[in-house]
Amino acid sequence: MRELPIHIELEQKSGKTLYEQIYEHIREEIRKGNLLQDERLPSARFLSEYLQVSRTTVDMAYSQLVAEGYLVAKPRSGYFVGDVRELYNTGVTDARGQAEPSREAEGLGQRYDFSPNAIDMSQFPYATWKKITKNIMVDARSHMFALGEPQGDIELRRTICRYLHGSRGVNCDPEQIIIGAGNDFLLLLLEKILGRHIHVAMENPTYIRAYKIFRSFAYPISLIPMDDKGIRADQLEDSGAKLAYVMPSRQYPTGISMPIGRRMELLRWADREEDRYLIEDDYDSEFRYKGKPLPSLQASDGRGRVIYIGTFSKAIAPAIRVSYMVLPYPLLERYRRECGFFSSTVSRIDQTILNEFISDGYFERYLNKMRKLYRTKHDFLLGELREFERDFTLSGENAGLHVLLTDKRGRRENALEQAAAEADVKVYGMGAFRMEEEQAKGPAAMILGYGGLTQEAIREGISALKKVWL
Amino acid sequence: MRELPIHIELEQKSGKTLYEQIYEHIREEIRKGNLLQDERLPSARFLSEYLQVSRTTVDMAYSQLVAEGYLVAKPRSGYFVGDVRELYNTGVTDARGQAEPSREAEGLGQRYDFSPNAIDMSQFPYATWKKITKNIMVDARSHMFALGEPQGDIELRRTICRYLHGSRGVNCDPEQIIIGAGNDFLLLLLEKILGRHIHVAMENPTYIRAYKIFRSFAYPISLIPMDDKGIRADQLEDSGAKLAYVMPSRQYPTGISMPIGRRMELLRWADREEDRYLIEDDYDSEFRYKGKPLPSLQASDGRGRVIYIGTFSKAIAPAIRVSYMVLPYPLLERYRRECGFFSSTVSRIDQTILNEFISDGYFERYLNKMRKLYRTKHDFLLGELREFERDFTLSGENAGLHVLLTDKRGRRENALEQAAAEADVKVYGMGAFRMEEEQAKGPAAMILGYGGLTQEAIREGISALKKVWL
Repeated sequence: MRELPIHIELEQKSGKTLYEQIYEHIREEIRKGNLLQDERLPSARFLSEYLQVSRTTVDMAYSQLVAEGYLVAKPRSGYFVGDVRELYNTGVTDARGQAEPSREAEGLGQRYDFSPNAIDMSQFPYATWKKITKNIMVDARSHMFALGEPQGDIELRRTICRYLHGSRGVNCDPEQIIIGAGNDFLLLLLEKILGRHIHVAMENPTYIRAYKIFRSFAYPISLIPMDDKGIRADQLEDSGAKLAYVMPSRQYPTGISMPIGRRMELLRWADREEDRYLIEDDYDSEFRYKGKPLPSLQASDGRGRVIYIGTFSKAIAPAIRVSYMVLPYPLLERYRRECGFFSSTVSRIDQTILNEFISDGYFERYLNKMRKLYRTKHDFLLGELREFERDFTLSGENAGLHVLLTDKRGRRENALEQAAAEADVKVYGMGAFRMEEEQAKGPAAMILGYGGLTQEAIREGISALKKVWL
Repeated sequence: MRELPIHIELEQKSGKTLYEQIYEHIREEIRKGNLLQDERLPSARFLSEYLQVSRTTVDMAYSQLVAEGYLVAKPRSGYFVGDVRELYNTGVTDARGQAEPSREAEGLGQRYDFSPNAIDMSQFPYATWKKITKNIMVDARSHMFALGEPQGDIELRRTICRYLHGSRGVNCDPEQIIIGAGNDFLLLLLEKILGRHIHVAMENPTYIRAYKIFRSFAYPISLIPMDDKGIRADQLEDSGAKLAYVMPSRQYPTGISMPIGRRMELLRWADREEDRYLIEDDYDSEFRYKGKPLPSLQASDGRGRVIYIGTFSKAIAPAIRVSYMVLPYPLLERYRRECGFFSSTVSRIDQTILNEFISDGYFERYLNKMRKLYRTKHDFLLGELREFERDFTLSGENAGLHVLLTDKRGRRENALEQAAAEADVKVYGMGAFRMEEEQAKGPAAMILGYGGLTQEAIREGISALKKVWL
């Protein structure tokens, strides 16, 4: 332990609380590598006396750093710097569809960030969005400022219904759609509909945020292995789960598209017992560059076993806090009975803007433009990756916003990430998407997202990777 | 049973689904009194054959009507019209702070609706709101379309913090504030923070929506009687509850302001055991017409035992889906550990608009204007009610948007409501705010809300009530 690793200049008038200043200072020290893994911090009592601040202020800063994984608290010995590799991964996997990691990356100072979550907002029709907003505000009368239906405005539900039918083959009535402020809220609502202690199965690797949410419900979770067709239906059956959370159109993060045979197996699984359901998270099905887009799993479901969830946060903008859930009729009934009184989380103004954006054709035009833009980046990246094929297997291409490189030379993910970081490139190991006990299994697989990068950045980043990986 | 009480003209192209048409038709028949309480409906099988629609369509319509209380399903005998009095009450008590009942009332066709939930939107500064929105959209760059912090934008949290401190005496740091899309969402989040099976105590009568939400958590609920100072602290202690949901500034619906002595008793109750908390729902404290506004309960809390919840839905507009929760530090820590990954439910654009509306002084000006407007209506109503004092006791005046009339002549609430309805006046009996077993107790008390009525409507409505009640 160094004598005093924390040299904090506290400013009483900085506009930040003392707590924030302490928290940010320590976090930066860890990020910059001035505080290294397993290094012990001064005790909260010592630091509070040294800085002349209350013990609570220091406790709070430490707790926050522990909560975020920067520090680890060890009973009877104090606070230590945590595993920073783990930390980066957590930052990333929490942010799918939210363009957050690039911000994190800034803090870490890496120049080329191949985040699978970053999206390109350069082509967003800001002017159109503003114009729609302005027109709606001009027309807005008091009804626009009233609370809408708990399920969402019927006009927007009709529009979503048409859109889902046309683009994803989803079969539903507007009455089956529930609009909510983000997928997380819809899952909270779904817990109230499905009830407690529901045994849920998830793909492994999977979308970590959903995993954390189910864990916060105290649902028993089974992680089911995948083969090249997706989640293994036989193991799903053996798990005893009642509910399965799947991403059939393009699994995150593996990029696997589930073929129709496996889909039918899943639907048969659900139909084999009362009260078995599949949650289909169709998070970025809008982007596919080769072949026809696959219809949704819900489209093949004749028995009302699929709960379909989608969002506009990825296809339009992360700020658009509008997601939707399509409930099978038996669950719709339960929703109305148990949860129909929960008031809407999306304002009517926002619903109206979105409705016009979609129904006036702007959404489709924007999607077409983005599909072209992302396809260009995708094709360019694949070109740049040609030399990697000797050392890596490429997969997950032709859709979405990232590809996978699986190492053939038996190297560790940690080592590949570290080498990339030293070349100023941020890449994301698959380990962060697997649960603890599984992390060591299988060859190293690196996720390379390209949505948020320019062609120039892709070229330079990949060129830097060549030097350290090949 | 009449031969066929359901004469529905289904239109294939009406823009409404068959299910909606059947549901709405039966609901209207019940509302209009064409179908009376306990009357049996045709079986779903019979109706589906008669109307040539699928059995599922009819089942769904019936289920929805059951869920909403219009129908009651009796095993092995069929569907019957429910207790319509109960039904009206449910419609009302669900809608506190949401200006919804007036819409319900339109359906019922009563001319003067003394809903305690209606608010007056006539003075809302639509032009200002539009101007702020427009300016923000002009300046909006991509960061506005990014996802914000899970707790809400720091600027808005700072603004709310200043506002709460200045107007309600709330002591907190911006870091303690969590912004969410409505109180219901914040309570869902709070369940994840507090955990399961928390024994909660509520005032009786209380805000029914909160009661339903706690019930949906499967929290054991104790209903605690009130005296003229509010919830009885001795009975709270005896109940064994860990959590108490209270409205100290102005209890809903009784209008009781809790004096400081009782507040201290509550705080002592909370401090007596680890992990006891008070939820302070400060839902309409902005409106007080006599004397100084009471500070919040949180303002007297030196031990971090009060979870403070407020909303802009009542003071600005129901469409503003922005509520806030102030967490004591130990719970803030738990929030960050257990729930910090739940993404924000309010878009940054909406947060920015609201922040400017408040920090540029528009909110305060609007509140001052509304306080005057509601005070004028309040004083006018009290003048019109002078003749009622022989037959009723008046209470709950001088604040909020409704008063209470308690009958001195031993009449039943049902009878008073019915008489009012025949005079084209909708009033709200206290019974709907009490739980089942308590409904019969005590004298009839009628709630008269005036927020949404003009002076003319108040005069005419009260004049009509005089004829039937005095």
